[in-house]
Amino acid sequence: MTRIFDDPADFADDQLAGFLDLYADRVRGVHGGVVSHRGERPQVAVVIGGGSGHYPAFCGTVGPGLATGAVVGNIFTSPSAAQAYSVGKAANQGRGVIFSFGNYAGDTINFGIAAERLRAEGIDTRIVVVTDDVASSDTEEERRGIAGDFTVFKVMGAAAAEGLGIDEVERLGNAANAATRTLGVAFSGCTMPGEEEPLFSVPEGHLGLGLGIHGEPGIRDVPMLPARDLAALLVDDVLKNTPAGAGRNVGVILNGLGTTKYEELFLLWRHIAPRLRDAGCELVEPEVGELVTSLDMGGCSLTLMWLDDELDALWRADAYTPAYRKAGAPVAALREPTADELADAEAVVTAPVAGEAGRRMAGTVRAALAAVESVIRENEHELGRIDAVAGDGDHGRGMVKGVTAATARIAECGDDVGGGWLLQQAGQAWAERAGGTSGVLWGAALESLGRHLGDTADSYPASTVAAGAREFAATIQLLGGAEPGDKTLLDALLPFVDELERRVGDGADLAEGWTAAAGIATGRARETAELRPRIGRARPLAEKSLGTPDAGATSMALVLTAVGTVLTSGEENA
Amino acid sequence: MTRIFDDPADFADDQLAGFLDLYADRVRGVHGGVVSHRGERPQVAVVIGGGSGHYPAFCGTVGPGLATGAVVGNIFTSPSAAQAYSVGKAANQGRGVIFSFGNYAGDTINFGIAAERLRAEGIDTRIVVVTDDVASSDTEEERRGIAGDFTVFKVMGAAAAEGLGIDEVERLGNAANAATRTLGVAFSGCTMPGEEEPLFSVPEGHLGLGLGIHGEPGIRDVPMLPARDLAALLVDDVLKNTPAGAGRNVGVILNGLGTTKYEELFLLWRHIAPRLRDAGCELVEPEVGELVTSLDMGGCSLTLMWLDDELDALWRADAYTPAYRKAGAPVAALREPTADELADAEAVVTAPVAGEAGRRMAGTVRAALAAVESVIRENEHELGRIDAVAGDGDHGRGMVKGVTAATARIAECGDDVGGGWLLQQAGQAWAERAGGTSGVLWGAALESLGRHLGDTADSYPASTVAAGAREFAATIQLLGGAEPGDKTLLDALLPFVDELERRVGDGADLAEGWTAAAGIATGRARETAELRPRIGRARPLAEKSLGTPDAGATSMALVLTAVGTVLTSGEENA
Repeated sequence: MTRIFDDPADFADDQLAGFLDLYADRVRGVHGGVVSHRGERPQVAVVIGGGSGHYPAFCGTVGPGLATGAVVGNIFTSPSAAQAYSVGKAANQGRGVIFSFGNYAGDTINFGIAAERLRAEGIDTRIVVVTDDVASSDTEEERRGIAGDFTVFKVMGAAAAEGLGIDEVERLGNAANAATRTLGVAFSGCTMPGEEEPLFSVPEGHLGLGLGIHGEPGIRDVPMLPARDLAALLVDDVLKNTPAGAGRNVGVILNGLGTTKYEELFLLWRHIAPRLRDAGCELVEPEVGELVTSLDMGGCSLTLMWLDDELDALWRADAYTPAYRKAGAPVAALREPTADELADAEAVVTAPVAGEAGRRMAGTVRAALAAVESVIRENEHELGRIDAVAGDGDHGRGMVKGVTAATARIAECGDDVGGGWLLQQAGQAWAERAGGTSGVLWGAALESLGRHLGDTADSYPASTVAAGAREFAATIQLLGGAEPGDKTLLDALLPFVDELERRVGDGADLAEGWTAAAGIATGRARETAELRPRIGRARPLAEKSLGTPDAGATSMALVLTAVGTVLTSGEENA
Repeated sequence: MTRIFDDPADFADDQLAGFLDLYADRVRGVHGGVVSHRGERPQVAVVIGGGSGHYPAFCGTVGPGLATGAVVGNIFTSPSAAQAYSVGKAANQGRGVIFSFGNYAGDTINFGIAAERLRAEGIDTRIVVVTDDVASSDTEEERRGIAGDFTVFKVMGAAAAEGLGIDEVERLGNAANAATRTLGVAFSGCTMPGEEEPLFSVPEGHLGLGLGIHGEPGIRDVPMLPARDLAALLVDDVLKNTPAGAGRNVGVILNGLGTTKYEELFLLWRHIAPRLRDAGCELVEPEVGELVTSLDMGGCSLTLMWLDDELDALWRADAYTPAYRKAGAPVAALREPTADELADAEAVVTAPVAGEAGRRMAGTVRAALAAVESVIRENEHELGRIDAVAGDGDHGRGMVKGVTAATARIAECGDDVGGGWLLQQAGQAWAERAGGTSGVLWGAALESLGRHLGDTADSYPASTVAAGAREFAATIQLLGGAEPGDKTLLDALLPFVDELERRVGDGADLAEGWTAAAGIATGRARETAELRPRIGRARPLAEKSLGTPDAGATSMALVLTAVGTVLTSGEENA
């Protein structure tokens, strides 16, 4: 729906005033439209136009290498002959004027009258009509002009910028039109400024094949298609209309009509490009985007211009306008990375050689993760139940996915790597597969713990592990932005780390300190799980990043307890 | 609504595949996103990113002078740390990596983890977070990043392209963010691929002030405003947030969110630009268009970046990416027309000096047009009634408007001009004011008749006038594209011309021949008005250009008869 306007009747003039303010450094307004500032040498004036509502057609493509002027009519309405005459006269640089526009009755008449008036004043004036829409008629003379406007204007704009004379520019424009074919589809209608209802509509779940850019009748309504099938429809129908004697090279436009977004067009292009190539086409500098729109209409069109050598060069030429800018130089100056650079970018970081202590730690890490996987699987349902009180109930599932990915990843690692490396690998796998913010935090915390411990120390005394636990918690605090009391896993983790540090500082061994601290965490988690959700506005990060507060503390306590059991049994085994 | 997709779950990957195919000459795909091909010299890698659905953010602005790489997450979802790490590593050219993104929890966490991983591999990695949305929080740290992403990325991209070191690029990025403020409004929600209902909605007839680009809560809903008031709201609220110590120069973005069209944005710009200037701002190379979108969301935002000398130069710098291309040179090479050129373009065509016969004809033309105005006014209602049978009933009104404008225009012409000139003036006025295709045809036909007769002949014998009538009819045939029998004014006009030529050829004087021929026209018009509309498909031009066929022939006959009366009484007076 069109939402921004003052008096809807003045929409076309009002938007033009804004356009002229914005681009005052390169165009000037004249009665009826827009004229480009002049280049170094006089050139044939290519004056395009038609109704408003099609931006960037028409004034958005005025500038070096494209149109010299644009006549701007009311929305979807031909400009008057007086407007076309005025713009043509202002655009003329002494080398003649070519009017070019899509084949609609009003435009044909008004530009025709303007041309007569200019000729009567001695200004050589020609007319090149665009007739690209294969859906509108079987005969070229009766076809409408739609997105193929752009290919024709582009060719003439480039030819005029090269300094060619009016006969040549006219001839090339007609050649471009003869080589251009478009088929469009509409998904939804467009709404005129000030109106509540669209100008026309497409039946729900359908697309209008061949619908015109002002809602003119199409060929038929067909049920909406997946992108792959839509691409096939467009490509095959346009190719059916290949001009006689056409070569392999084609300039291509996949044009969006307004509401259809660039991402949708790219998705469609993914199917269109290979289908065209399979049909033997060589795609020359394709354009995917909005070139001829129809207010907020939903839909798109595919345009092919078959290129001979002349058209090929003009299609590739540089242009610089408000809406369409093309310059070969910046792209030509780029290069793909060298083999060395690629190797750098893709270098897989390999495990450092682990010392004896590091390799011993690897055994503990494997045992601990196995125990964690086991306890998490046992409690998956209960964690989901707690989470569902205030969240979406997927915490158990997420934890299972994370820890399963972690144990699978370390199972792939060789026996000679250290525990620090295993923790880093486990963390990366956990983050990638668990999904959600708590999965990312668990993964990052494990990774930072592993990096902190490393694999090259001579030994891993309890104080080193306690410092690692602090690092683990700090990573979660830093990335998650939550604070104690926000009802997150920190409410179990931080008391655990505090107690572990205190016990180890007092001389306790690791298993003993860990087990005691895990007991504290379990108590806190129970309190947290039972508390009602905190009232009031949480900080945005805490709110978003730790959306499953109750269950998060509980799963943390379960993990810590399971690891404690492993550490204890490990000491007993040692 | 998002319409083009295959499996909605794969939308982000599928669209990226199309993008990579399209721009294979300048970017390459890597795990997690896109990396620019390399320039001549290694530069600091500016790696931007976030979820999909915001095109051209983020991959559309990768290229010389802007981002070095973009991480591409799922729709409205942060990319994973593994994706960000992969793109950062591939983008690194040995001079370090700066991750930059809008301030959202998921992005902060994932880019943070990726940065840690890169640093662990010895790659200097920095983070610049964008926090421009003044509606989202009172404190900078908690503000979201929206369209201000672009100003920050642009500044860093230009700084990196200049070859500055990572400390400098980071400093300038943070300075750009500190100098940037945005306020957005939403008119309508956006729809995820495969969904029928929008993700959120704005109450009918309202706009959501400060709504986030994923539908996050705004400040409040306010009733929809005319463009002038909407501009005032945006400008005043952004200016209220002017940073301390800001100067006069501002880079400006008026950003469209998806469904809001360029023409609407230009219309809004018409009010925004003067209001900013009135507030003392110097507008530096403003951008109006889509830079950060939100699928098919309706709405827009205003971003200001207050520029010191450093930021000013970087904002103005050239850039060349798929979606954003800027080059000063083509515009700098343009010039406004000289005074002579302007005089040529604006030269008013003056009446040629009329001979005696031409001046005598002027009297007949004035009398004839007065008689035509009188008979058309008398028959306005009847013409409307006939037209309403198959058309929109406005033919009488249109004829009155046309002839009234014509008589008013010739009343302004001096007594020394000829009848040929008066007919040309009358025709131009008629076409401009009557509206509709029949008005344009009447105007063009009168103009060509006047041009045919001219004002310099020694006499105007009946044969000259008959040839002029043929010219009058030929103009309508040529411009309108209709044929006899299409139920248009030609069905009265052509028999008239045939009969006039025949009578004059047989030696009749003008008044006699004209009156007899007008009688034939009246008879044919009556038949035409009584016939049922022709069944079958009319040619498009005939159908469109002559939409009021019955009434058109009738008004033609009325005019011809009235002119005949004037000619007869003129001969009697002579």
